[in-house]
Amino acid sequence: MINKKYRDMLDNKSVIRELSEFATKRGNEIGYENVFDFSLGNPSVPAPESYKKAAMELLEKMDPMKLHGYTPTNGNDTVKKQLADSLNKRFGMNYEPCHIFPTAGAAGAIAHALRAVTQPGDEVIVFAPFFPEYYPYINETGARIKIVEADTEAFQINFEDLEKKLTKDVAALLINTPNNPSGAVYTEETLTRLSEVLRRKSKEFDKNIFLISDEPYREIVFDGKKVPYVASFYEHTLTCYSFSKSLSIPGERVGYVAVNPACEDADKLVPMFGQISRGIGHNCPSSLVTIAMGETCDDTSDLSVYETNMNLIYDCLKELGFTVTRPGGTFYIMPKALEESSKDFCEKAKKYDLILVPADSFHAPGYFRMAYCIDTEKVKRSLEALRRFVNTEYPDRA
Amino acid sequence: MINKKYRDMLDNKSVIRELSEFATKRGNEIGYENVFDFSLGNPSVPAPESYKKAAMELLEKMDPMKLHGYTPTNGNDTVKKQLADSLNKRFGMNYEPCHIFPTAGAAGAIAHALRAVTQPGDEVIVFAPFFPEYYPYINETGARIKIVEADTEAFQINFEDLEKKLTKDVAALLINTPNNPSGAVYTEETLTRLSEVLRRKSKEFDKNIFLISDEPYREIVFDGKKVPYVASFYEHTLTCYSFSKSLSIPGERVGYVAVNPACEDADKLVPMFGQISRGIGHNCPSSLVTIAMGETCDDTSDLSVYETNMNLIYDCLKELGFTVTRPGGTFYIMPKALEESSKDFCEKAKKYDLILVPADSFHAPGYFRMAYCIDTEKVKRSLEALRRFVNTEYPDRA
Repeated sequence: MINKKYRDMLDNKSVIRELSEFATKRGNEIGYENVFDFSLGNPSVPAPESYKKAAMELLEKMDPMKLHGYTPTNGNDTVKKQLADSLNKRFGMNYEPCHIFPTAGAAGAIAHALRAVTQPGDEVIVFAPFFPEYYPYINETGARIKIVEADTEAFQINFEDLEKKLTKDVAALLINTPNNPSGAVYTEETLTRLSEVLRRKSKEFDKNIFLISDEPYREIVFDGKKVPYVASFYEHTLTCYSFSKSLSIPGERVGYVAVNPACEDADKLVPMFGQISRGIGHNCPSSLVTIAMGETCDDTSDLSVYETNMNLIYDCLKELGFTVTRPGGTFYIMPKALEESSKDFCEKAKKYDLILVPADSFHAPGYFRMAYCIDTEKVKRSLEALRRFVNTEYPDRA
Repeated sequence: MINKKYRDMLDNKSVIRELSEFATKRGNEIGYENVFDFSLGNPSVPAPESYKKAAMELLEKMDPMKLHGYTPTNGNDTVKKQLADSLNKRFGMNYEPCHIFPTAGAAGAIAHALRAVTQPGDEVIVFAPFFPEYYPYINETGARIKIVEADTEAFQINFEDLEKKLTKDVAALLINTPNNPSGAVYTEETLTRLSEVLRRKSKEFDKNIFLISDEPYREIVFDGKKVPYVASFYEHTLTCYSFSKSLSIPGERVGYVAVNPACEDADKLVPMFGQISRGIGHNCPSSLVTIAMGETCDDTSDLSVYETNMNLIYDCLKELGFTVTRPGGTFYIMPKALEESSKDFCEKAKKYDLILVPADSFHAPGYFRMAYCIDTEKVKRSLEALRRFVNTEYPDRA
């Protein structure tokens, strides 16, 4: 007998996937270059040459028994050292290799982090708006998701709601900065206040509340700024990273969890991740990919296109009268729709070959998401379609 | 608070790992070439040239956005077709690409297969002797492991015990042929009888009992024979495969689940695997590795060394008076120890720099396992040590 829960999941099609399929179908009719597809968060720039060079040299020169051999349970020590050194140098941390656990992307990182610091029945707080995959990430551990409502001013943290929701059943908070879908970057002020709340509540409940920080967009940040490094604000932080965006290699499935050396049982968490892997069936990412990533972990693709696109889109949205917070990073922007139902708004946009995603599934009803990881030339053409759409469908907007 | 269950797992050190660590330590004292380390099942031959060539050409010539881009949820269609075609040609099956799901090795394959066809609380039957990782594989799904005792004659199936244990709570059977640790290959007769039992019991319980077939050693088979293809005997078979051994790329973590097209809901299982991935955090194996594997899935490393080693070891064991079943495949052999406690036996062997693994953790007390994936020259030298060990410690054996 097949499993009913997973069988039933097949009936709940993802809105993003449906829109992406519509875009592909429409592309077959009018040419995909004429479909302004803002649905998917796929990097639109190639991997850096250094990554390709590293992978080719490994294949050419390294002993294949070593290159393709089993990785130790807790990860490749050379790569763990490269990652620790990089984080220490960039963010003033003091990670040792024993605090780093390479994973199959951020999804793998979060799968391990959640299982290590929750027990079944515990609550995990997430902050609206959030990536809908957080539902399966959390639900499948046996923990329960608890949502803190959005701060719709600046998409920082709604601390009033957090204070209410942060009860003794909460084992961990899962944050995402820079944020998918809002593009917001948590400020130093936000992170300082968050860490104060966490320390106070940890004391009150006589346990350490963990902060799981999902940071795949850390390197995509605008206006020459740097993203404040979350773990430097709060000791019980597990940093979950992916090289999908910084190296533009999402299909290679490589990232890591970094355990703050100051956290409870810091020396036990990585070995625990190794044990967790045994039951969920992925024992370290690809050895070739991991070693090539270690050698190029300080490099990035040319990420400047995302800022160029963001400025073009943001300026146009403002000009058209949208309520929108300017993103500090990522390749997303989340404006308020011009009518109450963002679903109706996005449905109408399809007539103009604009593929916009209602943000309801991100727990932000009334908003929509645009993923602007596409060619700048296409972004420019899309803005003409956006102007036509808005001026035709909403001529009387304020 | 860290999770207690995973924390406690750190205290249970694997016997194999401890022996392997002892071998490394002893190697530092006397030179690793003088330690006859039969502890670990690591392939000892390099990947075929064709795999290296495929990977390098992909890096050199394929659009990096395509090569390193996200793989679709249910896997890369080109690779799924290559795998289906290969299985159809080799084993007379009729798989379509929609029946194939690429995974992170056999561990990932089993993780998906078990979750798809069990509900929490169900029982999963395994057959002694078995790979101890089957415990976490099964336990972490919420199902319970149920052990059918060994057929100690030929290490086929103890059908008498199977008939007793195959009750209505059993959702699936997990078999492994060629077998780690015994080296036994299930015969056509065994598989025919097994499928008859499964069909009869499925009818009795009015449900389809699934057969999960773990086949990473399928290509390592001796005496010019072929391994009978399990899925061709029983319709409700999920075939779990890894390229770790056939292509000697265990660190690359690539394999698949193949769903028998004749099985219940055959068209739904792969999409269910895609859903299962979301919660356990590994969404398809590395894209580069998967595409290179697809192009070389019919190739193998030069696997002949394992048969050479097996014959040398088997003949020596027989000559020394061991009770041992001649392996039909794999790179393992599992003789009976020369005293009741195989732990004491293996402990004594260490004095002769022979690293043998007691098979207690494989649910075969009184036996020990030798993994002969080492150089033939070293195997030859090890047999001298084995003779000295046995003649010195057990001079009065029958």
